[in-house]
Amino acid sequence: MKASNTVKKILANYEGETPGVKAKLCQMLMSGRLKGTGKMIILPVDQGFEHGPARTYAPNPAAYDPHYHYQLAIDAGLNAFAAPLGLLEAGADTFAGQIPTILKLNSANSLMSDTAGKNQAITGSVEDALRLGCSAIGFTIYPGSDMALDMFEEITEMRREAAALGIATVIWSYPRGEAISKDGETAVDIAAYAAQIAALLGAHIIKIKLSTDHLELKEAKKVFQEQKIDVSTQAARVAECMRSSFAGRRLVVFSGGAKKGEDSIYDDARAIRDGGGNGSIIGRNSFQRERGEALAMFDKLVDIYKGRD
Amino acid sequence: MKASNTVKKILANYEGETPGVKAKLCQMLMSGRLKGTGKMIILPVDQGFEHGPARTYAPNPAAYDPHYHYQLAIDAGLNAFAAPLGLLEAGADTFAGQIPTILKLNSANSLMSDTAGKNQAITGSVEDALRLGCSAIGFTIYPGSDMALDMFEEITEMRREAAALGIATVIWSYPRGEAISKDGETAVDIAAYAAQIAALLGAHIIKIKLSTDHLELKEAKKVFQEQKIDVSTQAARVAECMRSSFAGRRLVVFSGGAKKGEDSIYDDARAIRDGGGNGSIIGRNSFQRERGEALAMFDKLVDIYKGRD
Amino acid sequence: MKASNTVKKILANYEGETPGVKAKLCQMLMSGRLKGTGKMIILPVDQGFEHGPARTYAPNPAAYDPHYHYQLAIDAGLNAFAAPLGLLEAGADTFAGQIPTILKLNSANSLMSDTAGKNQAITGSVEDALRLGCSAIGFTIYPGSDMALDMFEEITEMRREAAALGIATVIWSYPRGEAISKDGETAVDIAAYAAQIAALLGAHIIKIKLSTDHLELKEAKKVFQEQKIDVSTQAARVAECMRSSFAGRRLVVFSGGAKKGEDSIYDDARAIRDGGGNGSIIGRNSFQRERGEALAMFDKLVDIYKGRD
Amino acid sequence: MKASNTVKKILANYEGETPGVKAKLCQMLMSGRLKGTGKMIILPVDQGFEHGPARTYAPNPAAYDPHYHYQLAIDAGLNAFAAPLGLLEAGADTFAGQIPTILKLNSANSLMSDTAGKNQAITGSVEDALRLGCSAIGFTIYPGSDMALDMFEEITEMRREAAALGIATVIWSYPRGEAISKDGETAVDIAAYAAQIAALLGAHIIKIKLSTDHLELKEAKKVFQEQKIDVSTQAARVAECMRSSFAGRRLVVFSGGAKKGEDSIYDDARAIRDGGGNGSIIGRNSFQRERGEALAMFDKLVDIYKGRD
Amino acid sequence: MKASNTVKKILANYEGETPGVKAKLCQMLMSGRLKGTGKMIILPVDQGFEHGPARTYAPNPAAYDPHYHYQLAIDAGLNAFAAPLGLLEAGADTFAGQIPTILKLNSANSLMSDTAGKNQAITGSVEDALRLGCSAIGFTIYPGSDMALDMFEEITEMRREAAALGIATVIWSYPRGEAISKDGETAVDIAAYAAQIAALLGAHIIKIKLSTDHLELKEAKKVFQEQKIDVSTQAARVAECMRSSFAGRRLVVFSGGAKKGEDSIYDDARAIRDGGGNGSIIGRNSFQRERGEALAMFDKLVDIYKGRD
Repeated sequence: MKASNTVKKILANYEGETPGVKAKLCQMLMSGRLKGTGKMIILPVDQGFEHGPARTYAPNPAAYDPHYHYQLAIDAGLNAFAAPLGLLEAGADTFAGQIPTILKLNSANSLMSDTAGKNQAITGSVEDALRLGCSAIGFTIYPGSDMALDMFEEITEMRREAAALGIATVIWSYPRGEAISKDGETAVDIAAYAAQIAALLGAHIIKIKLSTDHLELKEAKKVFQEQKIDVSTQAARVAECMRSSFAGRRLVVFSGGAKKGEDSIYDDARAIRDGGGNGSIIGRNSFQRERGEALAMFDKLVDIYKGRD
Repeated sequence: MKASNTVKKILANYEGETPGVKAKLCQMLMSGRLKGTGKMIILPVDQGFEHGPARTYAPNPAAYDPHYHYQLAIDAGLNAFAAPLGLLEAGADTFAGQIPTILKLNSANSLMSDTAGKNQAITGSVEDALRLGCSAIGFTIYPGSDMALDMFEEITEMRREAAALGIATVIWSYPRGEAISKDGETAVDIAAYAAQIAALLGAHIIKIKLSTDHLELKEAKKVFQEQKIDVSTQAARVAECMRSSFAGRRLVVFSGGAKKGEDSIYDDARAIRDGGGNGSIIGRNSFQRERGEALAMFDKLVDIYKGRD
Repeated sequence: MKASNTVKKILANYEGETPGVKAKLCQMLMSGRLKGTGKMIILPVDQGFEHGPARTYAPNPAAYDPHYHYQLAIDAGLNAFAAPLGLLEAGADTFAGQIPTILKLNSANSLMSDTAGKNQAITGSVEDALRLGCSAIGFTIYPGSDMALDMFEEITEMRREAAALGIATVIWSYPRGEAISKDGETAVDIAAYAAQIAALLGAHIIKIKLSTDHLELKEAKKVFQEQKIDVSTQAARVAECMRSSFAGRRLVVFSGGAKKGEDSIYDDARAIRDGGGNGSIIGRNSFQRERGEALAMFDKLVDIYKGRD
Repeated sequence: MKASNTVKKILANYEGETPGVKAKLCQMLMSGRLKGTGKMIILPVDQGFEHGPARTYAPNPAAYDPHYHYQLAIDAGLNAFAAPLGLLEAGADTFAGQIPTILKLNSANSLMSDTAGKNQAITGSVEDALRLGCSAIGFTIYPGSDMALDMFEEITEMRREAAALGIATVIWSYPRGEAISKDGETAVDIAAYAAQIAALLGAHIIKIKLSTDHLELKEAKKVFQEQKIDVSTQAARVAECMRSSFAGRRLVVFSGGAKKGEDSIYDDARAIRDGGGNGSIIGRNSFQRERGEALAMFDKLVDIYKGRD
Repeated sequence: MKASNTVKKILANYEGETPGVKAKLCQMLMSGRLKGTGKMIILPVDQGFEHGPARTYAPNPAAYDPHYHYQLAIDAGLNAFAAPLGLLEAGADTFAGQIPTILKLNSANSLMSDTAGKNQAITGSVEDALRLGCSAIGFTIYPGSDMALDMFEEITEMRREAAALGIATVIWSYPRGEAISKDGETAVDIAAYAAQIAALLGAHIIKIKLSTDHLELKEAKKVFQEQKIDVSTQAARVAECMRSSFAGRRLVVFSGGAKKGEDSIYDDARAIRDGGGNGSIIGRNSFQRERGEALAMFDKLVDIYKGRD
């Protein structure tokens, strides 16, 4: 697999990183229909843990079966497929080598009381990722939670272990918790801060949410206004998040959230592209649609990221 | 021991799993009077820890002796016998090799105040399971408890260690705790969620409770109703739990709870069978009966699972 | 040292246990004046930690010196001497090999506020027990305390380590804490439950307190009454505790508590004997008496356990 | 690199330290335009973690790029560049060997509620410092926080590991938390105490804040007044901090805080110099200025430390 | 170095201890002007951590320099010098081999709020003690604190590690915390209890405070009165503490507390001597005096312990 010049340039940003990690990044960037473009679309399926099976799969019952997701990601020509241990194992033989996989190493669930705090359980290991032939580990942090320091420490250790063994790290940086308001969870200053934290923790690929023009932190708001940072469009906000990811030296993909209309998804993708983002990570918006619709949607997204739409 | 085609098909679902684990699953599925059918009946005896000795054994005093349970499970032709460390050791020599055993690695007790939280103590290790020649480890999780994340992390580590050493993992997924109402503990949405969590954690065999048609979580209830998921019969509810166990790719056995009438037990077994479940795990309903009665009951259950009743 | 048939029969109950552990149990059962009878008298001296030195030793000032206790246990022909690290070390050379010793691995103290919870500190290790030539480790659990799960986990690990290295485990199972009333601490249902927990945790020798006819737990009380379990005499209560120790497959010794009249001590011993218990563990009732009196008391106890009184 | 006599004298104070650590201290003291003088200027860039990207970099947008900081530190002829893992890695290849680097091993952030306590997350390891060719690790402690004991223990372990591997340790000793008032955070008695704690913990280089003449602790205030310790000038206060750093046997650098006027910065440096301090650690006051201005400021600071201004 | 008969007799009390530990005890007992007498004077300098630098050193500014303390202890002919890691390292080369040293492994500080609890941070390791050529490790426990169990467990592990490596253990047993009143901290029953706990934890040298005739614990008070334990003089109270240290089988040194008049110090030493104690540990009362005065004071103390005064 010869890397494209675009990909080579991206890889060069990962200075001092092990050849193993670079090879895994290369593998993901050179897979699927966006190969060589530096853009990525990833299918994540961890919502069964977070929201329960019926909410996740019942809208498209074929999705109860782990094989469905592997096949969807392969047929759609995506860059990678991400899931927790059990789900990844359930297709590990059948689809071995057909698509890069990301083992999600921690998991949230909806059966937690308020007193339990905002946190996730570690439900896999780097060793599992090696055994299953994964390209990367995935890990969620909750900046803003009282448990955030613990989560930072967990991924710091796992990242080190993974990198030494030639596995890349994807950080889901999702602000929430005691220090942040509901609106703040998607505020642009918070989104950019979440990207910065993930970058500083050594993430190779950063996953954040698209943001609103809300500014959550008083001190940050002052600076955004003084320095006239443009947050009026989604593309502008993506651009601020990319700057906050080491001036674009890190791959950043954006998530779409709950299921919504297709036009809205395409608008999001154009904004990501125009703001300099590296792509989309789309779960419920794909597998909760009927398979044909989902494949058509991915076709269109590929076109958008290739700049044809 | 030649595996039946049914068993081979089941084993094929455990993709990427070590041959050692598959051998242990095969051993349990090819033991006893249900061998080769893909159905299982397991005798669990951990109630002495959870409820104390008198409540557990006094109704049938012969049951104070650990040997009684080994012999009952062997004579009834069950697939496996599950118990905590001390109890398993008390017959480890006498009955070595006569029935597959499952070492229960954590244990609850009734001597805990409300402030202690819902949790269990780890009272054994994978190393103990190896030493005692066990086929599997057993572990209880309490989705819904504020301690649930810790329990998930504990079994994640133990499962990894066990699988690497060729030992299978059975997860008792019993929802309870701060986030769940009393009715919710047996609600069908919660039962299916509990099965999904166990599957995602990598359980090879999932043990859940039979459920009611109650729907606990508001968001889940909406989906159950919109998608018209049938929860009107026990068999239908078992089917939803099987779908939630990777569309039936995982073995699921159902527990019976406190001692009750025989007819009710047989109705449960028929519902498990008709809903696609893999069998029963029956403790107090067997060993709190006189031995002759218990053996007759197991006979009948075998018939039901073989489809003869 | 040829084991008696009685001892051989007892050892056979420790199925699957390492020869090293069996050798240590044999050593204790074949030591002292009760050798070969399957009965045991043990001298425990950990009250200096729990109650302070003056309360413990001042009634018989010779007892401030660790050598006093070694010599007393040897001269009385007891089966074993149990103490915390520092005390055991203080006579480790002088008395090496003259009496089996039990290293108490955790210790309570009276200088704890209510908010500190009911717990003990780990004040020794299996490695120390090996180095000091001990026959067993000793460990206290507090069923009923909010710290009980932690204590169960600690002894589970230490027991495993000890057994693998050929050292036996004695569990002091002393119910107390948030979940139990003052009367409940000595209730017969609780005492039997405490014995069952110790047995399930893998104790080789179980140490519990003699109990009253109080029944603490509502659910247990119902069963005791329905099944007509006799709790009217101390011997009957000892018998229920022995049943709860795997139908007598485990050695159980009973403790005497605070200093009291000699007749009461002898009555206790007869009840232990008649109920099928394995012996006494007597601390303050021996060393707080003048040495001559204490030796005479032990003489009498030996006679009782030999069935001569 | 031949060490100057001044540097040799400083190194001699690190008695019993490994040659590897001394070599790293020598490397930092013999780098840049202050080489050989025993004075140091260090550029720290960890504010992106602590305050977020916009507040940190937007005033000088070129600073969003990690390369900017490496280049600034090199061009200004500083002694060392300090940053967290991700940022240091982002230029690790390009600038390898061009300037001594300090890997900041723990990181604060502004997204923490009051209930989360005053603490930082460990976001790197000594192993990372070795791999990246760093001269030292950096670690922040918060004397006065309820988490302080934990932080002391963390750096104690990391320092030991680092020193054994030939890497020096810089401790950022920043008083804050439950036990200290806002004014107290910069009180001179507290600053000197913070220096003493860092020295006792084994710091090779101590980083504290410049202080005010406020005296926070009643008992300390009494002594300052009785012993007539001069706290009337910044230089006098620096001198008390140097005395508290083992009578000047440890290197101490002082930080400047939020961006402020240049004159104020130069006055600070003169006070540090005149009080016997070893230099400045200047972050926001340099990189939030336009590059030309920042370089001019560093020129001036070098002159001051060389005694030419 | 030929040990005196007195010292040989003391060493014989450390039964079963490693030759390495005995050698270190011998080294301390055979050092300085009290060599061979079985008496000891130790200089501890950890007050800079506990009270801050000004309160500790400003009364005698030469004491800011770690070398001052080494030199004082050597010139006064003391048995040992105790200090935390950083301070000990600061003279480790210059004074190597000139006086036995004790590395204090945990440290308190005055910058802790009430909610932080009574505890110390571990600020060194056995490995550090080895590297620095120390004779012993030192560790403070706070019997009576809600953190006491943790502290007991910490020193249990460190003692084991140290003894295996041939290093002795000194325990500072200082009652304080939630379970003890202010008067109780120096009550004689509590002081004796503190000595007993240290002895049971395996301390080779026990450091406690001189006590008052106050009796803190109701149950203990009853026994002191019933048994007519003499607490009317300091010597009598020292004697009770020595009895509580395994009837004098352990070395016990007594501390002097805050700076006070010389006569009072000499009275204390006579009481220690007459009560059978092994010596003094004197920090602030020595180094806060002018050097000449301090040396004269030590002269006088040596005379007292030699029985000449």
